[in-house]
Amino acid sequence: MPPSPRTTGRVTLPIEEGIDDRLRELVAALGADAVRNSDGTWLPEVAAELVEKVYSTYFPARGDQEWALAHPDTLVNQYLMSPRITATGPEPLRIDVMEGYFREQFRPCYERVERFWEVIDRTTGQVVPVQGWSVEEATGILTIARPEPWHVYTVAFLADQVWDTTQMYNYITNGWGVTDPTRVKERPYDIRKNGVWEHVRQALRTWLESHPEVDVVRFTTFFYHFTIAFDAEAREKLVDWFGYSASVSPEAIDAFEAEYGYALRAEDFVDGGYYNSPFRVPTPAFRDWIDFQSRFVAQRAKELVDITHAAGREAMMFLGDNWIGTEPYGEHFASIGLDAVVGSAGSAATTRLIADIPGVRYTEVRFLPYFFPDVFNHDGGDPVGEANESWLTSRRAIVRRPLDRMGYGGYVSLALEFPEFIERITEICQEFRDIHDRSGGELPANAPFAVGVLNSWGSLRTWQTHMVAHAKWYKAAYSYGGVVEALAGLPFEVRFLSFDEVLAHGVPEEVGVLINAGAAGTAFSGGPAWADERLTGLIRSWVAAGHGFIGVGEPTAVDHGGAFLQLSDVLGVERERQLTLSTDRYPVLVEDHPVTADVEGVFDDGEGAGGDVYATAAGTQVLSYVEGSVRVAVNEFGAGRAVYFSGLPYSPVNSRTLQRALYWAAGREDLLEEWFSSDPATEVAWYPGQRRFLVTNNSSRAVRTSVRGMGRTWEVEIEPMGLVWTDVTDVEC
Amino acid sequence: MPPSPRTTGRVTLPIEEGIDDRLRELVAALGADAVRNSDGTWLPEVAAELVEKVYSTYFPARGDQEWALAHPDTLVNQYLMSPRITATGPEPLRIDVMEGYFREQFRPCYERVERFWEVIDRTTGQVVPVQGWSVEEATGILTIARPEPWHVYTVAFLADQVWDTTQMYNYITNGWGVTDPTRVKERPYDIRKNGVWEHVRQALRTWLESHPEVDVVRFTTFFYHFTIAFDAEAREKLVDWFGYSASVSPEAIDAFEAEYGYALRAEDFVDGGYYNSPFRVPTPAFRDWIDFQSRFVAQRAKELVDITHAAGREAMMFLGDNWIGTEPYGEHFASIGLDAVVGSAGSAATTRLIADIPGVRYTEVRFLPYFFPDVFNHDGGDPVGEANESWLTSRRAIVRRPLDRMGYGGYVSLALEFPEFIERITEICQEFRDIHDRSGGELPANAPFAVGVLNSWGSLRTWQTHMVAHAKWYKAAYSYGGVVEALAGLPFEVRFLSFDEVLAHGVPEEVGVLINAGAAGTAFSGGPAWADERLTGLIRSWVAAGHGFIGVGEPTAVDHGGAFLQLSDVLGVERERQLTLSTDRYPVLVEDHPVTADVEGVFDDGEGAGGDVYATAAGTQVLSYVEGSVRVAVNEFGAGRAVYFSGLPYSPVNSRTLQRALYWAAGREDLLEEWFSSDPATEVAWYPGQRRFLVTNNSSRAVRTSVRGMGRTWEVEIEPMGLVWTDVTDVEC
Repeated sequence: MPPSPRTTGRVTLPIEEGIDDRLRELVAALGADAVRNSDGTWLPEVAAELVEKVYSTYFPARGDQEWALAHPDTLVNQYLMSPRITATGPEPLRIDVMEGYFREQFRPCYERVERFWEVIDRTTGQVVPVQGWSVEEATGILTIARPEPWHVYTVAFLADQVWDTTQMYNYITNGWGVTDPTRVKERPYDIRKNGVWEHVRQALRTWLESHPEVDVVRFTTFFYHFTIAFDAEAREKLVDWFGYSASVSPEAIDAFEAEYGYALRAEDFVDGGYYNSPFRVPTPAFRDWIDFQSRFVAQRAKELVDITHAAGREAMMFLGDNWIGTEPYGEHFASIGLDAVVGSAGSAATTRLIADIPGVRYTEVRFLPYFFPDVFNHDGGDPVGEANESWLTSRRAIVRRPLDRMGYGGYVSLALEFPEFIERITEICQEFRDIHDRSGGELPANAPFAVGVLNSWGSLRTWQTHMVAHAKWYKAAYSYGGVVEALAGLPFEVRFLSFDEVLAHGVPEEVGVLINAGAAGTAFSGGPAWADERLTGLIRSWVAAGHGFIGVGEPTAVDHGGAFLQLSDVLGVERERQLTLSTDRYPVLVEDHPVTADVEGVFDDGEGAGGDVYATAAGTQVLSYVEGSVRVAVNEFGAGRAVYFSGLPYSPVNSRTLQRALYWAAGREDLLEEWFSSDPATEVAWYPGQRRFLVTNNSSRAVRTSVRGMGRTWEVEIEPMGLVWTDVTDVEC
Repeated sequence: MPPSPRTTGRVTLPIEEGIDDRLRELVAALGADAVRNSDGTWLPEVAAELVEKVYSTYFPARGDQEWALAHPDTLVNQYLMSPRITATGPEPLRIDVMEGYFREQFRPCYERVERFWEVIDRTTGQVVPVQGWSVEEATGILTIARPEPWHVYTVAFLADQVWDTTQMYNYITNGWGVTDPTRVKERPYDIRKNGVWEHVRQALRTWLESHPEVDVVRFTTFFYHFTIAFDAEAREKLVDWFGYSASVSPEAIDAFEAEYGYALRAEDFVDGGYYNSPFRVPTPAFRDWIDFQSRFVAQRAKELVDITHAAGREAMMFLGDNWIGTEPYGEHFASIGLDAVVGSAGSAATTRLIADIPGVRYTEVRFLPYFFPDVFNHDGGDPVGEANESWLTSRRAIVRRPLDRMGYGGYVSLALEFPEFIERITEICQEFRDIHDRSGGELPANAPFAVGVLNSWGSLRTWQTHMVAHAKWYKAAYSYGGVVEALAGLPFEVRFLSFDEVLAHGVPEEVGVLINAGAAGTAFSGGPAWADERLTGLIRSWVAAGHGFIGVGEPTAVDHGGAFLQLSDVLGVERERQLTLSTDRYPVLVEDHPVTADVEGVFDDGEGAGGDVYATAAGTQVLSYVEGSVRVAVNEFGAGRAVYFSGLPYSPVNSRTLQRALYWAAGREDLLEEWFSSDPATEVAWYPGQRRFLVTNNSSRAVRTSVRGMGRTWEVEIEPMGLVWTDVTDVEC
C-alpha cells in the first residue's frame, strides 16, 4: 500500500463488507474522505468511522420489489413501434407488435388502445382509422382489416416495462441468471400511478430512519429511465441516453392534454421509428413533452430532496439511469435543490457536463475503470492503462473547471488485487487535489471572448452534442463530437445556444465566435432552421460586423434557394451533392496559415463531411485539400471571418487547430503568443491571481515544450502524462 | 510500315496534305477504306484515289464567318446566372452580371430584359419585380434598388455568344492566339434568327457543289452546342455535355410559349445555378424544352440531310459539340434520316451509346488517342499505351454490339513519327474486322432476361447515366458510372427505363432485373419519385412476383415515412443519416455467396454511399461489411430477390460481380455455368449460330482461364490483351 498522501480529501471510495483492515489502509493511501456502496455491494459497519461521509445508493423507482409485485398496475410504460411491415396483398394484415422486442422486458399495454395506439400507412403517411384495425390481447397481434397492397405499415403502441431497464441490463450483462438465479427481476413503478407517489415518499422516510449511518443519499436516479429496448434475443436493440420514450403513461399523456390543450399522438413519441433521437430536429410537441415531464419530475424530486434534508442528510443525484426529467441544464433542474451531482467521466465533454452543472453545491466525477471483472482480471485486463486514459481524458476538463470531488465505483476487493493500480490512482487522487490547491480555487484565464455552439438544442444540451449512449464512440458522430471534446479542455467560456434563443435575443454580447457543427438534417447542424431568413440574416450581419463563424461538416445545410450550405457566402465553401459537378473548381490553396500551423501531413477530418466540399467565394483560402475536396478553408466576410472544417475528430492536434481557428476567426491571432505552448500534446492554464501557470502533458511520452506568455518564453520539460506548475514571480503583471 | 492486312475495310483514317506517298502506305497497312479531314487539316487531292469514301467535316452553325460578321444580330444566345451576391445593407445593390465569365465568350443580350432577365431573392425564393431593378447596358451592372439586407440575390440573364464554343476551346487549348494570331475568332449563328436558316441551306448546297470529291458530309454537328462557359481567366468554368443552356433565344422562347401555352422563365434554364444538370431531377418545363428544341432541330437537320442526299452524298453526324437537339435516343432523332453517326469512344458505355443508336444505317467510333501533340510527343507521351487502353476499354462493348466502322482523328503526320503506334493500330484494325468476320454478323447470345436501368431519364439517356463531360472521370460519379460501364460489356440486353414509363406501362415483360443506382436526390436515384406510392407499390409487387432488384449507393432514396431508402424492405438495407444511431445493428454476415464469389479481399465500392448503410430485414445477408457499414447485401422479397451495392466503380471484378448479382437476382444462378469464365479478367461471348465462342482478355497479363458452357469446360490461354476464338464442333447443340 502506498504511503500516506501529502493532502487528503475530495475522494470517494467504493467499499464492501469483510475487508475492514484493507479498507482502512486504502482510505489512508488515497486520502479518501467519503465511501459509497455500489449496485451489489453493502456498506460495512466500519464505514462511518473510516471517513467523514458515507454515501448510499437509493432507487426511488424500483427499490421496493415486494411493493412492486403487490401493485402490478403501477408499471412504467414505454412507447414502442412495431417493425415496418409491408402488405403483400389486400387480405387482412397481421402484425405481431412485439416482434423483435424482448418479451421479458415489455408486454403490450392495452389500456385504451384506441387512444394510445396508432397504426400508420407509412407509404402515404395516413393514419389508419381505429375502425380499420383490431388487436387480440392474448397474442399481441394487431390486424389491419383492409390494407393497401404493397404499402408499409407500422403500429406504435404503449408497452408495460415488466423488467426495470438498468437492473435488466446488469442482470443480463453479469449473467446473474446463471450465477444468481434466485435474484428477482425487478419491476419499475411509475410515480404517476395509483398510490406510487405516496409509497415512494414514505419509503424514503422509512429508509432514512433505518439508515442513520448514511450521510449522503445517492439517488440513482429518480423516476424515468432513458430509452433502452432489448431485442428478442435479449440483446440491446435501441439505446438513447436522451430518450423520453420510457417517460410515458396514460396518466401523463392525459395530464399533458389537460394542461397544454392539445393531445399528443403515439407518433409524437415513436417519431416514425426515430424516437426523437437527439440528432432529430426536435418537434414542438417533443419540446413541450420535455418541458412537461421535466417540470413534473423536478417537483417530485424536490419533495424527496426535502425529505432527505429534513432527515439531516445530503441529496446527491447520479447523472444517468433514471435521469429523464432531470436534465441538469434544463430550467427546472435547480428547483430540485440537490446538494450534489455525481456522474461518470467518459470524455472531457462529459466531465465538463458534470463540472458545469448549475444549481448544486458540489459535483463529483466517477472515473473509469469501474472495478468490475471485465477490466480487473489477470487475463489481459489493463486497469492501470484504463485509469491513465480516463484521467488524461478528463484532466483537460478538470483543469478548466475543477470538479469538487472524484471517485471510483465497483468492487474494491477486485482493485486491491492490483497493487500497481492502487499506486497509480493514489497519484491521480493527489494530482486531483493539487489542481484545487495550487490554483487556490481560481479558474484559469479564458480567452477574452466566449465561444457559442449553435444548434437546435442550445443550453439544454450543454456539452451533450453528438452523444448517443453517453460518451460511447460512434463512427458517424466522432468527427463532430470532437468539437465539444476539444472545447471541454480549451481556454474558452463556451455557451450552447439554440436557434430559438439567438432569434429571440440575438447572439450574446460576450460571444466572439459561433460554431455550427453537424451533419445535414440533424439537430446539431439545424436542418430547416437555416431556411429561415431571419436566422441567416442575423448570422450574416453578426459575422460581417466583425465576429467569427466556424462550420464543421455540413453546417447551415438545407436544400434551399440553389444552395445547400446556406451560409456558403460566409464560409466560402459549399457541399457537393452531385448537382454541380458541371462546375469547374479552381481552389486557392494556401500552404501556411495560422489556423493549420500545427497540422503535420494531412488534416484528419475523421469521416469527413459525407461527400466533397468545394470553395465558392473568390477569397476562400483552402488550407487542406484532399482528393478534390476541401478539408479546411478560411474566408473573410465583411469585417468578420469564417473557418470551415469537413470534420474535427478529437486529437491533440485537432484541438489545437480548433483553438487556433477560434483565435483567428475572432481576429485575435495575438492570443497565439499568450499562454500558448509549442507542443500540441501540451496545454497551458494561466492563473492570473496566482501568477502561476500549469502545463499539462496529454501524451504518454516525455515532452519538452516552449510556453509563451506575457512576452516571455519558458522551456518546460514534462514527464509522460505529467504536469508542471510554474510560478511567474519575476515579471510585472 | 507493317505488311498488308489479312482483310480490309471498316477503317477511317484522318489525312492531310503534303504526304501522299506515306498516306498510300498507311491506308494499305491499316486496310482503311475511308479518309477524313480534321479541324485544321485539309483533304489532299489524292484522297479520292486512296479509298472508297472521303469524309469532310462541315459546320452548319459557324462555317461561314464572313457571313457571320456581316450579320451580327444572329448570334446564338446562352442563359447564364450571375454569382450569388449577398446584400450587406439596404442601399442599392449593384451586380456585375458578367462577373466571373469570359468577356470574349459572352456579352449580355439586352433584348427585352424585362422578359428574359430574372432577379431572384434566393433567401426567400421570391422574384424581384422588374420595377425593383434596372440594368445599365454600357457596363452590364444591374442594380437592385432596395434589397433586403443580408439576402442573397442572383440575376439570370440572356447572353450573346460572341465566340463559338468549340472553336474557342480549340483556339485557347492549342494556343492559336500565339501561334496563329491571324486566325479569326469564329462566331456562331442561330438558325432561328433573321435570315440564318435560308443562308445555312444555301451554303450547304453551294459547298456540296464545290466539293464533288466528298462522299460523306460529316456534320459537326448541327446548331446548338452543349453548355460550356469559360471564366474571367479564360478557363473552363462550367461544362455539361447534356446542357441546353446554349439552345436558347428570344425567338425560341417566344415560339415555345406560343406552342405550349405557357411562358418559360429564366429560372427554368438557370435552375438556381444547377442549369438542369442531368443529375438534377428534371422539371416538367425542362422536359418540355428538350422536346421542343429536339423537334425543331430534327426538322431542320432533316432538311440539310435531304439536301446532302439530293447531292448524292451520305450524311454523317458527329455525336458531340453542337449536338443539342439531336439526342440519338430521343423520339425525333430517327426522323432526321442520317446515314451514320460517328462518336468518340471514351469508355465502354460511350461506345455502346454509339453502337446502339437506332435509326441510322451505320455507326462509327473514333478511338483515342487523338493524333495531337499532347500525346504524340517524345517527351513522355505514350501513344501505344493510350491506344491499348482505348481499345481494351471499348472492345468489351464492341464484342457485345459491333460498331460498323472505326477510325482515328487528328494529324496523321504526327502519328507517322511513331512506327510502333502504327504497328499497334494495324493490329487493332485487324482485330476489329475479325470480330465482324468471325461472328458472321451475329450478335453474341445474351442472358434470357433483360436488365432495366431505372431512373428519371429512361431511354432518352441510354448508356448516358452519371456522365458530366462525356466519359470524363469524376470522383463523385465513378462509383455509380461503373454500373453502365460494366453492363456495356456484359451479356445482357439493357433497357433504360424512366419512372414515367414504368408507371404508365409497367416493367417491360422481358426485364428480369431492375437496377436503380445513384446518389440521393439525383435523377439517377430518383429523389421525390420514390415518395410516389404507385411507383413503390409497382416495384414491390413486381419483385415479389419473382423478379430481381439491384440498388447501388442510395437507391430509392427520399426522406419519407420514417425511411430514407423507400424500398428498404426489398433491399434489406437502409442508409444511416445519423438519425438512427440509437439502434443497435446485428448484421448477418455471410462468407460465401455466389454474388461475391469473385471478390478477393475487400469489395471496392469506390466512394461508397456517402455514409453508413445497415441491414434492416431479418433475412438480409451481408456479403461485405467494412467499418460497420454494408457494402454488399442480398435479400429475398416474396418470390423475388434484391442485391445492394454501396458503390460499383468499374473494374473487371466488379463487373463480374454485377453479372453474378444479375443472375442471382433473377434466380438464374444456373447461368454461372453457361458461357462463364473462371478468370474475372476475361469475358466470354457465345455465338450460337456460329457454334463458336470468343474469350477476351481485358488485362495486360497473359491469362489461363476455364470456360464453362453446354456442360463442358475448356481451358483457354490468352496473351496479354488478346482474344481467342474457339469453335465448338464436337458437341451437340
